[in-house]
Amino acid sequence: MSITNRVTPTSTPTQAGRFLDVRALTDTLTANLSAEDQTPQSMTDASPAKWHRAHVTWFFEEFILRADPSYAVYDETYRYLFNSYYEAVGARHPRPERGLVTRPGVADIAHYREYVDSAMVDALERGALDDDLLALVELGCNHEQQHQELLLMDIKHLFSTHAFAPAYVDREADDAEVSEPLTWRSLSGGITEIGAHRGPDAAFAYDNEGPRHRVFLEDFEIAERAVTNAEWLEFMADDGYRRPELWLSDGWAHIHETGWQAPEYWQYSDGEWTTFTLSGRRRLALDEPVVHVSFYEADAYARWAGARLPTEFEWEAAAATAGEARGQLLDPARCHPGRAATSMVGDVWEWTASAYLPYPGFVPANGAVGEYNGKFMCDQHVLRGASAVTPSGHERVTYRNFFPAPARWAFSGLRLAR
Amino acid sequence: MSITNRVTPTSTPTQAGRFLDVRALTDTLTANLSAEDQTPQSMTDASPAKWHRAHVTWFFEEFILRADPSYAVYDETYRYLFNSYYEAVGARHPRPERGLVTRPGVADIAHYREYVDSAMVDALERGALDDDLLALVELGCNHEQQHQELLLMDIKHLFSTHAFAPAYVDREADDAEVSEPLTWRSLSGGITEIGAHRGPDAAFAYDNEGPRHRVFLEDFEIAERAVTNAEWLEFMADDGYRRPELWLSDGWAHIHETGWQAPEYWQYSDGEWTTFTLSGRRRLALDEPVVHVSFYEADAYARWAGARLPTEFEWEAAAATAGEARGQLLDPARCHPGRAATSMVGDVWEWTASAYLPYPGFVPANGAVGEYNGKFMCDQHVLRGASAVTPSGHERVTYRNFFPAPARWAFSGLRLAR
Amino acid sequence: MSITNRVTPTSTPTQAGRFLDVRALTDTLTANLSAEDQTPQSMTDASPAKWHRAHVTWFFEEFILRADPSYAVYDETYRYLFNSYYEAVGARHPRPERGLVTRPGVADIAHYREYVDSAMVDALERGALDDDLLALVELGCNHEQQHQELLLMDIKHLFSTHAFAPAYVDREADDAEVSEPLTWRSLSGGITEIGAHRGPDAAFAYDNEGPRHRVFLEDFEIAERAVTNAEWLEFMADDGYRRPELWLSDGWAHIHETGWQAPEYWQYSDGEWTTFTLSGRRRLALDEPVVHVSFYEADAYARWAGARLPTEFEWEAAAATAGEARGQLLDPARCHPGRAATSMVGDVWEWTASAYLPYPGFVPANGAVGEYNGKFMCDQHVLRGASAVTPSGHERVTYRNFFPAPARWAFSGLRLAR
Amino acid sequence: MSITNRVTPTSTPTQAGRFLDVRALTDTLTANLSAEDQTPQSMTDASPAKWHRAHVTWFFEEFILRADPSYAVYDETYRYLFNSYYEAVGARHPRPERGLVTRPGVADIAHYREYVDSAMVDALERGALDDDLLALVELGCNHEQQHQELLLMDIKHLFSTHAFAPAYVDREADDAEVSEPLTWRSLSGGITEIGAHRGPDAAFAYDNEGPRHRVFLEDFEIAERAVTNAEWLEFMADDGYRRPELWLSDGWAHIHETGWQAPEYWQYSDGEWTTFTLSGRRRLALDEPVVHVSFYEADAYARWAGARLPTEFEWEAAAATAGEARGQLLDPARCHPGRAATSMVGDVWEWTASAYLPYPGFVPANGAVGEYNGKFMCDQHVLRGASAVTPSGHERVTYRNFFPAPARWAFSGLRLAR
Repeated sequence: MSITNRVTPTSTPTQAGRFLDVRALTDTLTANLSAEDQTPQSMTDASPAKWHRAHVTWFFEEFILRADPSYAVYDETYRYLFNSYYEAVGARHPRPERGLVTRPGVADIAHYREYVDSAMVDALERGALDDDLLALVELGCNHEQQHQELLLMDIKHLFSTHAFAPAYVDREADDAEVSEPLTWRSLSGGITEIGAHRGPDAAFAYDNEGPRHRVFLEDFEIAERAVTNAEWLEFMADDGYRRPELWLSDGWAHIHETGWQAPEYWQYSDGEWTTFTLSGRRRLALDEPVVHVSFYEADAYARWAGARLPTEFEWEAAAATAGEARGQLLDPARCHPGRAATSMVGDVWEWTASAYLPYPGFVPANGAVGEYNGKFMCDQHVLRGASAVTPSGHERVTYRNFFPAPARWAFSGLRLAR
Repeated sequence: MSITNRVTPTSTPTQAGRFLDVRALTDTLTANLSAEDQTPQSMTDASPAKWHRAHVTWFFEEFILRADPSYAVYDETYRYLFNSYYEAVGARHPRPERGLVTRPGVADIAHYREYVDSAMVDALERGALDDDLLALVELGCNHEQQHQELLLMDIKHLFSTHAFAPAYVDREADDAEVSEPLTWRSLSGGITEIGAHRGPDAAFAYDNEGPRHRVFLEDFEIAERAVTNAEWLEFMADDGYRRPELWLSDGWAHIHETGWQAPEYWQYSDGEWTTFTLSGRRRLALDEPVVHVSFYEADAYARWAGARLPTEFEWEAAAATAGEARGQLLDPARCHPGRAATSMVGDVWEWTASAYLPYPGFVPANGAVGEYNGKFMCDQHVLRGASAVTPSGHERVTYRNFFPAPARWAFSGLRLAR
Repeated sequence: MSITNRVTPTSTPTQAGRFLDVRALTDTLTANLSAEDQTPQSMTDASPAKWHRAHVTWFFEEFILRADPSYAVYDETYRYLFNSYYEAVGARHPRPERGLVTRPGVADIAHYREYVDSAMVDALERGALDDDLLALVELGCNHEQQHQELLLMDIKHLFSTHAFAPAYVDREADDAEVSEPLTWRSLSGGITEIGAHRGPDAAFAYDNEGPRHRVFLEDFEIAERAVTNAEWLEFMADDGYRRPELWLSDGWAHIHETGWQAPEYWQYSDGEWTTFTLSGRRRLALDEPVVHVSFYEADAYARWAGARLPTEFEWEAAAATAGEARGQLLDPARCHPGRAATSMVGDVWEWTASAYLPYPGFVPANGAVGEYNGKFMCDQHVLRGASAVTPSGHERVTYRNFFPAPARWAFSGLRLAR
Repeated sequence: MSITNRVTPTSTPTQAGRFLDVRALTDTLTANLSAEDQTPQSMTDASPAKWHRAHVTWFFEEFILRADPSYAVYDETYRYLFNSYYEAVGARHPRPERGLVTRPGVADIAHYREYVDSAMVDALERGALDDDLLALVELGCNHEQQHQELLLMDIKHLFSTHAFAPAYVDREADDAEVSEPLTWRSLSGGITEIGAHRGPDAAFAYDNEGPRHRVFLEDFEIAERAVTNAEWLEFMADDGYRRPELWLSDGWAHIHETGWQAPEYWQYSDGEWTTFTLSGRRRLALDEPVVHVSFYEADAYARWAGARLPTEFEWEAAAATAGEARGQLLDPARCHPGRAATSMVGDVWEWTASAYLPYPGFVPANGAVGEYNGKFMCDQHVLRGASAVTPSGHERVTYRNFFPAPARWAFSGLRLAR
């Protein structure tokens, strides 16, 4: 991705501290995982936890440390093993076989992390990095935050395949809670500015969040909270998964191929619905936002509810005026959404009606990091908000998350518009 | 689809004449095809010619004639056999097995066509149809025109699989022609109205062309003609199919899975490029517009050319001010694009940068015809213009054609914007 | 295949008559089929009826007529289009796409047949063929008989995919019949001679039926008739398809992948079992031999019955002493097994316990016809006997038919041994 | 499998010693493997090393220890997780997902092994097991030895997918050696006894090795040594992989689907052939037996050489008279074949021409262990001998190994007959 917004240069200690904070969270998140847990890949879309740990480290080594000719690369084979999809960097290990790379092991990767951390902190503290490289450091920190979320999504998926539902983190059952009744907020249309600001004082944003540009919106209403599990059960009880008129053609075909009758991770047995969480299998909490639904399901639900999904432009216009409140963001002791509340950011990512396309005037960054976002702008769908596994500080109103329509392993829910 | 625009009621003879003209063209187009030619299905996306002939007939019977309780259905099994995708109508033959339905045969289907034609003309001449049904007649005529194009696309694909390249229509080689040099037209941005008019005086349009609504456009330039075969050869010579930086990630993966190195139907042998046409295999005409490229290829070409594809809104804004000239539309004696000229409508469909999504306020029609367009609004890409196999009178500036990104069997090309 | 047994030279008129009789039966069998019926291929294993008609004709042209340099080949493209699998002959149309070759059509192929018939009769009547070529004529006649059976199997499969069960031949329902009670015949073991005789006086046999050789057999018993539909229903009622201990591992996996719960073509509705026949869908006749079962099912049934399948050697040893009686062979007005009677030859092919492997000393013929049988000796299973769609005169006790374990579209049943 | 041959009861200490020796070798073999190495499954046919360690332990627990009602099962979930394919035992984890079961981890499995070892030794030393259970102990020991070989095959396959060819065991390069010239041994035919003896004094054999029975053999010759890498290179140089007349139809199709041009693990670069070994990638040793070829390739090679594969009966008849010499068996410091020598047992498994079918009179054992061998007797091919990863003492002349025709990850080579 391109660095559309330069971070204002700040004192070196702060930068190193910011860097180390991000790095430390990754280590915190993998502390509960054995070497065995960190090795497999439960599907092509997912990656092993130890791969995530190495890949985010390689990102700093590849794009920042290698810029210094005197830097001694830790292991030349890692470029091949831990490049994700950067064609400009060269050949790389086939994605579907990441789970077969048993070597380096977890201990080797911990050592690699320390080596790169030390070199990075040294460079940051020496003030050896120019503005372009400092911008790449900030990109690398955001990149690692993004992978923290992916790592938790992937571990959840991996553990869900286990017949006996292991827990990633112990957690008490929540107290009974009652979700808010569904209310609507009205917004007036007209020309609206969308996207991240750019410039010396702008906060970090990915290249795909810009340029900031004008769109014309009609008047619309947007729900004050996300759709809940209780509401989803009503949809199911009303034959939501069996009525073709509610579904896009692709979605109808997909639920027949897959046999989907409920969101990912849900199971019905002994007269009740449970769902798999990062704390093992739990009784479904009715007042929580529904999560792990595909775009197809979100779209069908909206049609059933006599509403629709908001476009990403409507969503952003609404969020920009919704205040600073945040729902549940990543808490390593929880890793699960809170109750469906009025905040638009947090708890669950929200599918929008928008295809993931470049904004007018979008130009990817020069160099390999130009592949970060732009080349995926095809047949993906934008999600907005943030989830209970998004690291705090990584969320923002202009953030454009994206997944293909059938994807369900992200913490994805929905909010209605009309 | 919904009938967003009512045709002004006109005298019955004219309606019957319009109906019979459309019906006659289908018969003209299949006159060259044997019973054997009309039977197979060369891929799931395609349908047998005899299926097309029966399906368009069933459309009139299902949605218009059955409204009259006294109408004697020709054969009750046809509802199952010739329903395409209307869930509301009921169960139907699996699409991938249309080529296995040998009975009814070609002669039976001709008889079915005559039976329905007779009942339709009778109803039209008697003035027995109310405005809603007359609107469905007009929809049925457009539907049949759309299938005339599909039938030719499908026959071209079928014949292309034959090792000895049979000709659907004999045609002399064109004289040498020289395409226009590429020039650009500048358009100013601002709020623009997009989509088909609605109302009693409005011409026919599909429901997906409305509602007419406002969009905000930036200033842009658009090429005065489509990309030619000569230009495509330059792209290929410049390693266009081998440079990952030109491609969307999905496209790069797709050309590696498929081995694509050139547009569909092209072959290189004995030192020259040929392409398969409905008149058999021909030497590539350099000044013709490139045709049978996927969205992936169109997008990569545009990037290589330092340009981009227009959005469908830019395209429509440009076309609305481009005059009435038309490129090659369907001529049963040709069935092949003309030279790349300045008209935006005709010759080849043009991929746009836009995903196929509902316009703001879009509501599908009531009833089964509501499935015509809306349920396909997912992971498809809009093409604008019309092609050399689009029946004359079926083309219009607001027309939204759509195909998935990898599709190449439509007569699809591209025009640049920047 | 090699011509292991030379036909005793006989008078030319008789040879031509034999040839024309075989050819005429093919025409009889396709007289009921429209051009549409003869075009599609309902699965990769099957071929279009018009392809069968052309391929058997090409066999005579390729291997006999082309031996005469003065022969004018009918159409050089047919070698590519109608070669089945003879690598030595050269490139050929991909098997899975035989159903897309609409040209030549049925009328063209009829003309091709006449052309080749005329040249063949001329050569035979002139006595122009040497012994090697005459042996190939006999091979070609057997080849065409084999394809007559395949043509009927393939048409049955094609018609079975039609939702409304068309009939290939009209046929009255059989009178109620009662099958024989199951009795057993005991045979003593020891060294037994197996396989076809060779030499100047020997009747025709395929190369895979020789050399005649010695095998050592233990004492065994063999059932006097094939397993019936009534017996198969008992197996089903006793959870035959749901008890893993009855099944080979591959078979158990296969019935779970496919969902098989009954033989091919069986359906249960309105309280009764029906099966699709070449006369349309019919109520299951309890006293008929079960047909259209896979090797997996035959093997599981035998285990359920406390018995086993005979080896092909046991089968042949038993058949060699079973008399000349024949069950139902091909009758164009019936095309369906008779009741399960005591004959070992006719009605249904019988799966054996033997893998299809070369006999000791087996050597395929020289030349392309050496590919007829030998190269398929891997992972196929031998069936013995003959079926109700085997042309009379093509059956013999040493005949080795073979199919992969999951195949069900042949007229395949079983007989028990112990 | 059934225990066709009872081990003569011996003193308890010896039995416990035998048991512990087998168990210890498994631990020796996994001592070099990290937790990460032991977790993944590189293909469906393979299993994780830690799964092998747990499964062989479960075998003793399931079939022996559970027979004692007072035995406290270690963990009830292990029956589900570590049952391989015993339908009679109940539901089990899907085979293709064995690599996703990260818990229990390596340390848990080591503890499980200790627990079961302790209970087993206790039972053996107490003399608590009756003859049936003692026979199952011997079966369990053979089972574990079989999995020792599988574990090494699977690790080799896993490591071979790594771009940088890790070594399982360090090993010096062998000195240059020269293989023996190919000579032939003649054997006279007639009735021969095949299969393992049964009875109180008989050594252990699997159920599929019996009953001992008579077969009739023709005279034949068999090569005195296996085919070497040098000879295989001649086959390749003579276009062995490009001449259809050498191949079975299935094999020819398979090498085109897969692109095989050489045995598994071979690579050509910088002007020389290398192969992946358990000591990393090595230069191909010309005088070693070729290994990791499929049945298809072995069969094609034999045809090219003007010979054929021996039947398993010929092989056993020859081996029974070939003396006691053994080629390379499992040496944990080597794990690689020795030079191709005259011994028929050791170095590489040898494909035979025989399908894996039951011997006359074969009856699987009662109970779940009856599933050990019999249910796989379909579309597999018998290999005889033993390989450089077969534990010493597990090899015998009547042993019937079996794999599907395309399998190459076993240490499989070939010996010619004619």
